[in-house]
Amino acid sequence: MTERIRLAIVGYGNLGRGVERAAAANTDIELVAIFSRRPASSLTPLNPGVAVESITALTAFAERIDLLVLCGGSREDLPVQSPELAATFNIVDSFDTHARIPEHFAVVDAAARSAGRTALIAAGWDPGLFSLNRLYGEAVLPQGETYTFWGRGLSQGHSDAIRRVAGVKAGVQYTIPSKEAIERVRAGECPTLATREKHTRACYVVLQPGADADAVKREIQSMPHYFSDYDTSVTFISEEELRRDHAAMPHGGVVIRSGQTGEGQRQLIEYRLSLQSNPEFTASVLVAYGRATFRLNQRGEIGAKTVFDVPPGLLSPKPAEQLREELL
Amino acid sequence: MTERIRLAIVGYGNLGRGVERAAAANTDIELVAIFSRRPASSLTPLNPGVAVESITALTAFAERIDLLVLCGGSREDLPVQSPELAATFNIVDSFDTHARIPEHFAVVDAAARSAGRTALIAAGWDPGLFSLNRLYGEAVLPQGETYTFWGRGLSQGHSDAIRRVAGVKAGVQYTIPSKEAIERVRAGECPTLATREKHTRACYVVLQPGADADAVKREIQSMPHYFSDYDTSVTFISEEELRRDHAAMPHGGVVIRSGQTGEGQRQLIEYRLSLQSNPEFTASVLVAYGRATFRLNQRGEIGAKTVFDVPPGLLSPKPAEQLREELL
Repeated sequence: MTERIRLAIVGYGNLGRGVERAAAANTDIELVAIFSRRPASSLTPLNPGVAVESITALTAFAERIDLLVLCGGSREDLPVQSPELAATFNIVDSFDTHARIPEHFAVVDAAARSAGRTALIAAGWDPGLFSLNRLYGEAVLPQGETYTFWGRGLSQGHSDAIRRVAGVKAGVQYTIPSKEAIERVRAGECPTLATREKHTRACYVVLQPGADADAVKREIQSMPHYFSDYDTSVTFISEEELRRDHAAMPHGGVVIRSGQTGEGQRQLIEYRLSLQSNPEFTASVLVAYGRATFRLNQRGEIGAKTVFDVPPGLLSPKPAEQLREELL
Repeated sequence: MTERIRLAIVGYGNLGRGVERAAAANTDIELVAIFSRRPASSLTPLNPGVAVESITALTAFAERIDLLVLCGGSREDLPVQSPELAATFNIVDSFDTHARIPEHFAVVDAAARSAGRTALIAAGWDPGLFSLNRLYGEAVLPQGETYTFWGRGLSQGHSDAIRRVAGVKAGVQYTIPSKEAIERVRAGECPTLATREKHTRACYVVLQPGADADAVKREIQSMPHYFSDYDTSVTFISEEELRRDHAAMPHGGVVIRSGQTGEGQRQLIEYRLSLQSNPEFTASVLVAYGRATFRLNQRGEIGAKTVFDVPPGLLSPKPAEQLREELL
């Protein structure tokens, strides 16, 4: 075995803890340190031998780290951290604000290039593995339509949106794909589907004492971007019910390419994820792409990259000959 | 639009005709010629403007062709043609004898390298897209099991095997996956499945006049490698029934990675193909990988390659910026 890849985690929430577990599951990877804004004494890593450091100390570790996995949020953390840290480290992030990917790519690319580093942005499952399947589907079947359905799963962004509503103490939101719509796509119909026809949204909300339930419900259901284009149910529950029934973070979904070849021969490609833990799965994708990012850098391929730029073989710890023998 | 990629087809059976249709569906690709061992006068290309040439004239076209798509068989054609032609052209083939891929890779690599050409071997869906999904699944979920099920679909290799039995005039074989086995895998059971538990085989056979039906059935069912490890049904039909009911070439299957992360969180990845025309779909994959092969060559990446070596973005005619904007 060659030397292990020295990985560090930046940000120690659900995703960061997932990366810690994923690193432990890959024998060619060594978790060197966890960096957080919180005081080191307040964090308890799974493996007590791992160093916990303040994020302000990061650059002092430059020589001891092959790759940083950034586990912050796409709203506030990554737009700042990714370009800043790509100027010193190879990084992988899970930036998932689709509309801002081009600008994020541009600033990270500039930072990484000037430092001779490699920065893979927007890894995970969507963007990430789902993006790959949209690409493979379209490239192989140029005549056709691509459909992405999400869920059933807990959406972090939509849960956050609920929690910002006045009168809401806590809450979660599940995205639910329409079985009927999926069946129509699978049948090769290539339907045009309105947003409302593809998914519904189910909210479970704990109210603040004295809050007006009807007003909260109306505000959630009419919230633009998040809920107003969907059939949204709002169910009020107790804090105990929230803890007991809604602590897990399942997710998943499906990408379908429905295409035709020749004289109307129907060809269907379907890629489906069923995840009991969304953050642990996303973390697992980040670690595999982290391995590939480090290898790209070793090959001299610097700058910002996405999953579209990564030869699949680089994701595996196995050498190319072994992959051809075992998996091709 | 940049200049089109000048593609030629070598071998004009079902797969070659599929490549002809797939080339027509991709506006960045120009079909320059079809090469066959049969006399040009006996072939009728879909587009009568396309040149039909003898395979012996191939080298004279070296300057006019960017990429050859080899559409011969893996038993006799490709082991000879791929190394021979990779010494002059960029090529893509669908070599699918899994056990011989390492040696095929080695001889093609040597030929392509010495000529500065790029040769992508074993493209299609298995080997090909299914291989990719076995790789992605294993890389992302190192703790788990991978399952591949084929069908329901017509298997060319098994149909050929039937037709070699004395007393058989014609016949086809369908590979049928076990629904029960697939459901057990989907449920996260990670079962150990014997060959017989994963698939059954259904043969439809037209007898030669005077042939002994029982003897034919016994010989098919006991044929090693092909049928003896499976529950195999043999149904005798007329030539008319064969033509009427068994002319289509559907196929498909599913690759499932059933894994775990952290403390036993179940994570499932499922990749499914449902194909009305196996040769047309395989041909579509070959054309997309042909595009990527030509681009790899332009980048100076020479030698033999497989789907594991190809950055997904190179499969699409769209530039990287557009892919990031539209599909990531």
